[in-house]
Amino acid sequence: MGLPRDYTHQECSLARTLEIVGERWTLLIVRDAFYGVRRFSDFLAHLQIPKAVLTERLNVLVAADVLQRVPGPFGHDEYEIVGKGLGLWPTVRCLIGWGDEHYAPAGPRRLFVHTTCGREVDERSVCPSCDTLVGVADLIVVPGPGLPPIGADADPVTAALARPHRMLEPVDTRAAYPRRDGHTS
Amino acid sequence: MGLPRDYTHQECSLARTLEIVGERWTLLIVRDAFYGVRRFSDFLAHLQIPKAVLTERLNVLVAADVLQRVPGPFGHDEYEIVGKGLGLWPTVRCLIGWGDEHYAPAGPRRLFVHTTCGREVDERSVCPSCDTLVGVADLIVVPGPGLPPIGADADPVTAALARPHRMLEPVDTRAAYPRRDGHTS
Repeated sequence: MGLPRDYTHQECSLARTLEIVGERWTLLIVRDAFYGVRRFSDFLAHLQIPKAVLTERLNVLVAADVLQRVPGPFGHDEYEIVGKGLGLWPTVRCLIGWGDEHYAPAGPRRLFVHTTCGREVDERSVCPSCDTLVGVADLIVVPGPGLPPIGADADPVTAALARPHRMLEPVDTRAAYPRRDGHTS
Repeated sequence: MGLPRDYTHQECSLARTLEIVGERWTLLIVRDAFYGVRRFSDFLAHLQIPKAVLTERLNVLVAADVLQRVPGPFGHDEYEIVGKGLGLWPTVRCLIGWGDEHYAPAGPRRLFVHTTCGREVDERSVCPSCDTLVGVADLIVVPGPGLPPIGADADPVTAALARPHRMLEPVDTRAAYPRRDGHTS
């Protein structure tokens, strides 16, 4: 079963896993929210999801208290993953791990590292060094061996995640929107 | 977002969770396979899934090496969860746990108990008594407080799972098919 043509750029383990085990968009939006994606335009650019589908899915996730709509710093609402949504991390992590195991011949695209000790956690978010279950807020997502080189035309989220990034902290994509944010770059 | 009318009987935590986080059928088929459902007719009766959708999803899961088509004892092929598919247990368990937490006011419909010690494992399949990660083959699924009373018109899988049942072992639904199996009941 192939992904629809529009979505073939979604090569990460979770996207590939969801080809097999389920609907892609909702869990990909949730995954992005864990990465700290908050803006409609960033979800749109990163997932290349049809606008109407993204709107509908975000509304569903807000209604279900997985995401919360919050005023953003630049006049647009943003979406933050909250309470109930945070509880989806183990699922998302398991799915990424399953995808990494079966659909990532070059290795994982992204690794999850414990802030405290710098060691990679396993697919259950257990740190082998500290022997503790690590909450998503104490993880840093770093590029893995399977991440392809980031081209100049990369979307703002992909570009931002090319560097180590603390999970849940807002992804800084302002450089990609110089006019809207009043920045020049 | 409501489930389509045909599927409203799917009240278990996982089904409700998947209303929010994704496509229902694939992971519900996988969940049933973990319970030991193997026959096309049993998946059909338990999930009340359209026949064409079930056929297509089973084919996808077989092609992906999540399920294996094996000759059944009564002349029909059956579906067994194998290698790669078994690795989906942590995901399914996480999703059930999330649903139990948020969409099961009367408590979980099913509990998962460690064969060795009889204690319920947590949502990561860790046994709090033995302090070990328990594999799916060492779990028994037992009715939980949220399981409604089983009526006389219950489908064969629901009826079979009203008793403790070892995960992965084939669910015995022969009593429901006396003619096909040559049984009289």
